[in-house]
Amino acid sequence: MMGMLEDSLELIRRGAEEILPEAELRKKLERGRPLRIKAGFDPTAPDLHLGHTVLINKLRQFQELGHEICFLIGDFTGMIGDPTGKSKTRPPLKSEDVARNAETYKEQVFKILDPERTRVMFNSEWMSRLEVAGMVQLASRYTVARMLERDDFSRRYKAGTPIAVCEFLYPLIQGWDSVVLKADVELGGTDQKFNLLMGRHLQEQEGLEPQVILTMPILEGLDGVQKMSKSLGNYIGVGDPPDEMFGKVMSISDDLMWRWFNLLSFRPVSEIEGFRREIDEGRNPRDVKFLLGKEIVARFYGEALALRAYETFVARFQKGAVPDEMPEITLVAEAGTSGLPIGQALCAAGLVSSTSEAFRMIKQGAVKVDGEKVVDRALDLVSGDSCVCQVGKRRFARVTVVRS
Amino acid sequence: MMGMLEDSLELIRRGAEEILPEAELRKKLERGRPLRIKAGFDPTAPDLHLGHTVLINKLRQFQELGHEICFLIGDFTGMIGDPTGKSKTRPPLKSEDVARNAETYKEQVFKILDPERTRVMFNSEWMSRLEVAGMVQLASRYTVARMLERDDFSRRYKAGTPIAVCEFLYPLIQGWDSVVLKADVELGGTDQKFNLLMGRHLQEQEGLEPQVILTMPILEGLDGVQKMSKSLGNYIGVGDPPDEMFGKVMSISDDLMWRWFNLLSFRPVSEIEGFRREIDEGRNPRDVKFLLGKEIVARFYGEALALRAYETFVARFQKGAVPDEMPEITLVAEAGTSGLPIGQALCAAGLVSSTSEAFRMIKQGAVKVDGEKVVDRALDLVSGDSCVCQVGKRRFARVTVVRS
Repeated sequence: MMGMLEDSLELIRRGAEEILPEAELRKKLERGRPLRIKAGFDPTAPDLHLGHTVLINKLRQFQELGHEICFLIGDFTGMIGDPTGKSKTRPPLKSEDVARNAETYKEQVFKILDPERTRVMFNSEWMSRLEVAGMVQLASRYTVARMLERDDFSRRYKAGTPIAVCEFLYPLIQGWDSVVLKADVELGGTDQKFNLLMGRHLQEQEGLEPQVILTMPILEGLDGVQKMSKSLGNYIGVGDPPDEMFGKVMSISDDLMWRWFNLLSFRPVSEIEGFRREIDEGRNPRDVKFLLGKEIVARFYGEALALRAYETFVARFQKGAVPDEMPEITLVAEAGTSGLPIGQALCAAGLVSSTSEAFRMIKQGAVKVDGEKVVDRALDLVSGDSCVCQVGKRRFARVTVVRS
Repeated sequence: MMGMLEDSLELIRRGAEEILPEAELRKKLERGRPLRIKAGFDPTAPDLHLGHTVLINKLRQFQELGHEICFLIGDFTGMIGDPTGKSKTRPPLKSEDVARNAETYKEQVFKILDPERTRVMFNSEWMSRLEVAGMVQLASRYTVARMLERDDFSRRYKAGTPIAVCEFLYPLIQGWDSVVLKADVELGGTDQKFNLLMGRHLQEQEGLEPQVILTMPILEGLDGVQKMSKSLGNYIGVGDPPDEMFGKVMSISDDLMWRWFNLLSFRPVSEIEGFRREIDEGRNPRDVKFLLGKEIVARFYGEALALRAYETFVARFQKGAVPDEMPEITLVAEAGTSGLPIGQALCAAGLVSSTSEAFRMIKQGAVKVDGEKVVDRALDLVSGDSCVCQVGKRRFARVTVVRS
């Protein structure tokens, strides 16, 4: 039994940034009863990317351990709109929008969570019943000074960036959700720590056992540096087509791969450690990345499409990829010109036997420069540049043109 | 017509601390339409004292000029209670309490205001309909930084004294009342300036013509220094009996009398200036104070009772007062005693002809020491003390007992 508890704790700890306080989590787990695990989601952004799934994956782990998941859609503030200085243009959502977004959410999220064991809730249910009096009373539970201790508030206040008074109400509303739900554990990103602690504070004030908070790190995007985000373009959308999803996973660095294995894979830690050892012993990291790509695609599209995405990738790679090694040829542009005509260049590089063959191949669409199909036989390779010229599937040369 | 406008402005300016902006007030008055004058009152303190009436007197002046008075009872926040650190014990009012307090208010206030031309309103009427969403939106209208610029918030924040988040909501609620009422002018004490300006801010945001704000000074109490307040004991309650009210007015200094004339009297300024001149020319200030006392008592009890209070005061003064001059007698206590027996002392001071007369007078209740009736014939006047001994209505002596 204790062994099971330690196993549970290890699974819960996996990838988590903080568990506060862990001793309380242990106590809650020791009781052997299913815990109520809360995570709140914004109803305005139903297009999830893998960054969002880090939290959902953690919910799934709790679900696998037999706990009850409250997937809370924070429609209440969404329906108010965010009228703060920062995002004046964001209009309040209509309840139809919220309902539609919620459906999209569920569709995406239930690829990870078991719908049978997930309660999807909307906080408007109780928040709209609270009335102004209740809201004012809620706002009496916390001081301005402590609110201003929150990292981002403190930074904005010091910088003279406006903070609307209503922004002090949102953490209280989020905390109140924990009171209403009697949450045992609340999950959130590291940027949510203050709000999660507010839930503890309000539960304690209400004489409830305070929730344990668990924060998950923010996932880095494809570049491995910035956080994954739509606006940075470094994301994999949960709705991306299988081939694209697979290709994007294959594009990440080996370092990032281990991070993603930890946060996105459901493989046991021991198995992942096995992969590391195999790579140390000479296995190609690409083959392990294939496994990650297949696992992620399979999560959203099933095993069959994941396999097909893998095969498509490999075929394209083998057929279409530029070989690592190819002849390197330096050509000299004629004096007084700014470059070398393409036909001449292909000929000089030995990729065709004559400029007429070059033109015929261009006409057939069989000539590429740096992967781009050449359509204009009048194209010049500019002197000073270096480019990969390709004729047909197999003939390649790296051509550098220099001035005479 | 312009003359009338100037007269109106002069009456409105009387005693006012600030009118912001006066040019807007002038513009509003120039239209010649009745203005809507708002003043908010706390539903928790229905026992008014003269300090509270300074504002009500100003409302009366507006009423006399033909404007519409909104006597707004802020029952909404009262029913929430004030759960801030400062006054944790203050429980929320029940609506019955509010209704009862409102009745007491009206009883007192309608001795000054014309009930026919006064709208008594309760802000719970619209605030309870606002709902949480409306409250959150309202809280988006103002920034934390500007809220913290308010004098008392700024002081408390710097001193580390807790400010509950809900305290940021109260000014917004008060300001929203002005939006709902479409107030043209809002009156308040000088300590209300921030809240009054909030009304302007919110009205402007709502595309309404912003209200003009008018602040009245805080009335000094009987001591002429501290603000009149129940807890300081330096107040005249609107419900004080006529004699007590009159007597208290008579106890104030001549300087304070002029201040009170300005803020509490309805006599024209020209008449009051006449009084000043008369006193400069030798009139007893006490006689002018009589007029103030009679006017104030008459306001709450009518002319007849005011006259009686005046007469009672004069009679008591003439009959019961200790004369300014009386014989000063020093007596020597017998060696080995701690004082002088009362009979012996009265005799030696020449107030009675014998100790037996002294005892008879004591029995009749006709002997007083320092204004206290003597009941015990065994009383000693303690050596070292000095006291006023009185026998009957007219016989007085200041007796000092010294050790032999």
